[in-house]
Amino acid sequence: MQRRHWLRAAAGGAALLGLAGCASAPSPLSAPSWAAPSAGTGDLGVVVERASGRLAIVNTSEPRVLGRVDGLGDLSHASVVFSRDAASAFVFGRDGALSRVDLLQMKLTGRVMQAGNSIGGAISQDGRLVAAQNYQPGGIKVFDARTLAAVADIPAVGADGKPSRVVGLADLPGSRFIYALFDAGEIWIADLSEPKAPRLTKFRDVGRQPYDALVTPNGRHYIAGLFGEDGLSLIDLWDDAPRARRILAGYGRGEAPLPVFKMPHLRGWAVAGRHAYLPAIGRHEVLVVDTETWAEVDRIAVAGQPVFVMARPDGRQVWVNFAVPDYQRVQVIDTPSRRVVRTLEPGAAVLHLEFTPRGEAVWISSRDANRVSVVDTASFQTLAQLPMEAPSGIFFTSRAGRVGL
Amino acid sequence: MQRRHWLRAAAGGAALLGLAGCASAPSPLSAPSWAAPSAGTGDLGVVVERASGRLAIVNTSEPRVLGRVDGLGDLSHASVVFSRDAASAFVFGRDGALSRVDLLQMKLTGRVMQAGNSIGGAISQDGRLVAAQNYQPGGIKVFDARTLAAVADIPAVGADGKPSRVVGLADLPGSRFIYALFDAGEIWIADLSEPKAPRLTKFRDVGRQPYDALVTPNGRHYIAGLFGEDGLSLIDLWDDAPRARRILAGYGRGEAPLPVFKMPHLRGWAVAGRHAYLPAIGRHEVLVVDTETWAEVDRIAVAGQPVFVMARPDGRQVWVNFAVPDYQRVQVIDTPSRRVVRTLEPGAAVLHLEFTPRGEAVWISSRDANRVSVVDTASFQTLAQLPMEAPSGIFFTSRAGRVGL
Repeated sequence: MQRRHWLRAAAGGAALLGLAGCASAPSPLSAPSWAAPSAGTGDLGVVVERASGRLAIVNTSEPRVLGRVDGLGDLSHASVVFSRDAASAFVFGRDGALSRVDLLQMKLTGRVMQAGNSIGGAISQDGRLVAAQNYQPGGIKVFDARTLAAVADIPAVGADGKPSRVVGLADLPGSRFIYALFDAGEIWIADLSEPKAPRLTKFRDVGRQPYDALVTPNGRHYIAGLFGEDGLSLIDLWDDAPRARRILAGYGRGEAPLPVFKMPHLRGWAVAGRHAYLPAIGRHEVLVVDTETWAEVDRIAVAGQPVFVMARPDGRQVWVNFAVPDYQRVQVIDTPSRRVVRTLEPGAAVLHLEFTPRGEAVWISSRDANRVSVVDTASFQTLAQLPMEAPSGIFFTSRAGRVGL
Repeated sequence: MQRRHWLRAAAGGAALLGLAGCASAPSPLSAPSWAAPSAGTGDLGVVVERASGRLAIVNTSEPRVLGRVDGLGDLSHASVVFSRDAASAFVFGRDGALSRVDLLQMKLTGRVMQAGNSIGGAISQDGRLVAAQNYQPGGIKVFDARTLAAVADIPAVGADGKPSRVVGLADLPGSRFIYALFDAGEIWIADLSEPKAPRLTKFRDVGRQPYDALVTPNGRHYIAGLFGEDGLSLIDLWDDAPRARRILAGYGRGEAPLPVFKMPHLRGWAVAGRHAYLPAIGRHEVLVVDTETWAEVDRIAVAGQPVFVMARPDGRQVWVNFAVPDYQRVQVIDTPSRRVVRTLEPGAAVLHLEFTPRGEAVWISSRDANRVSVVDTASFQTLAQLPMEAPSGIFFTSRAGRVGL
């Protein structure tokens, strides 16, 4: 009865409401028959507090810290992926630990010391497998996302017969992972459709010392940066017979090399529409590359050596942070005009940025200022400043629904 | 103590594990100190059971129906958007009702009769505003997503002085909504940055009878199909001075018109890489359009009059369903080759499809077979069949993080 009565009143109210009357309209939720909505996990995320080995659990709808989870070990180069239901964060620590953190209970729900030294991981397309890439002893290890039981241990021994460090691990469609062997100069795909019998596809001679890599947002291209030569290695995974080929070879040719203060993070490369925006290594430039021809089409001068070059989800803007000594700055590139339209100084030692799922805001970590700034991407106003202890990586649960993150 | 002991054991175990040893490795979760992970909302969704005015709440990680929520009125042309935290579904009923359904509690948490006749809605980029588009009395109404209180009532009176039905409502960056006036032949943008004083931008003479529309996934282009003339109306929202222009004018020219059994749904148009895949109206064809020039570059023959033409999230495949009499079929187009690579018959009267967030599976509703089929998009195997009563629209929470859905 109560519900029916309210419905009738609300229907009448809505039909009569003009703009002027809106402010005084009774809230339909004042009727006691409606339960309060539950809280979901679609607007949650984590910020790595690297110095203290802690994660801050955050909410992006009303920017705030919900709580903290500690006991995560060495988080100096930590990365994070999310469970398919967006309730758990898998944290890959530098010390080789894989930890699972529950965002709702704000506590650990599992932890495995899986290697001696690790720098990242990935989760399979269906969310069932979590893979970690390792420096020591090299190779990748694969775990059941639900139980954290070990599923596969795949050493990375190159054609030279030596074990290699693994970098640039990313998920591919199917139960597949792709990664690069830094020491061997190879790229491998591990197909875990039958977890106990992984099938490996190996690309040899991809280039010297691939140091990081990414999969484009559509899952089509795998691109590895080469430390040992001038250029990048590209695989078109949609080809009937995929092969690795060099692109942008010699893009620094003819110019005096600059000291490199920090290697750019390729995972941050931006693809916006048809173009990719890449950090030039050691140069104060962002390169614009046509993703159909993979030729360089432009260079944009920026305020320092770029580290992360990240597209707002709609691709209209690309945001860039920098290596020391310019790492107090963040610059915004307008992609249609390819011009820097704004320079921000959100606090010393900007280490990472993360956009909210639909891009209305960006969260920026300033390690030495001990804070995360939340900035409106349309007005560039600072919406909030959240105190954090030496914050580095920021990761939101919307990554759970995206390829290659 | 227990945790430390377990950690040491796990570390040793992981270091020693080879492939052969994996199956018998002790699960780290057997240690009692770890809490069980919470359930998140990232893998939830709803299926509209149109005949019974009900929603089935579903989980896509292990395909299953979690429960049902009824009392939703006339759902014969219902559409759904999700709260920013992915815990609530806003359901726009044909009868003008806006209902909020909690996916975790599986119950209604609010309901407003907001108009006499409605066919869809949208949620703002920041998740704070929900807008409904109406046939009767026309115009849009905007509500507070949290309280469901009325915020704005914006009639749609065209340059001709008459009220118009509204179609093609979508969110734009900022607190903006874009929509088309069917009767007036106009497109409007309502900026709700100040909810009590909406600012309107009106595009006149966009073409006769825009009947549906979409925003491209990057939020850049708004495209309205025209019922009253042969072609489409396009606005580049990134232009300094956006204007509406006709594209694909006369694309049916010189061909005998076919009877149109069902108007295609434009919201299903697929953008895959640089190309858009559009349903030809009344013809057994999918049109391929270059999104840089907006010229037609190809036509793909299909098994019937296409209704929904939807890209798998990675753009590698486009899936198509059809109007009567071919609506028992679904076809799959491989986008690099532009060829139909598979024809499926999942059950009579296929009304809708929805891809899982990262595209490993697609859910297909077969109204007259009273079931939803879950199909692996790589192998085309049927993974599950879920009994449903006359299912129509399928909507997953990953939409919460995407523009224009």
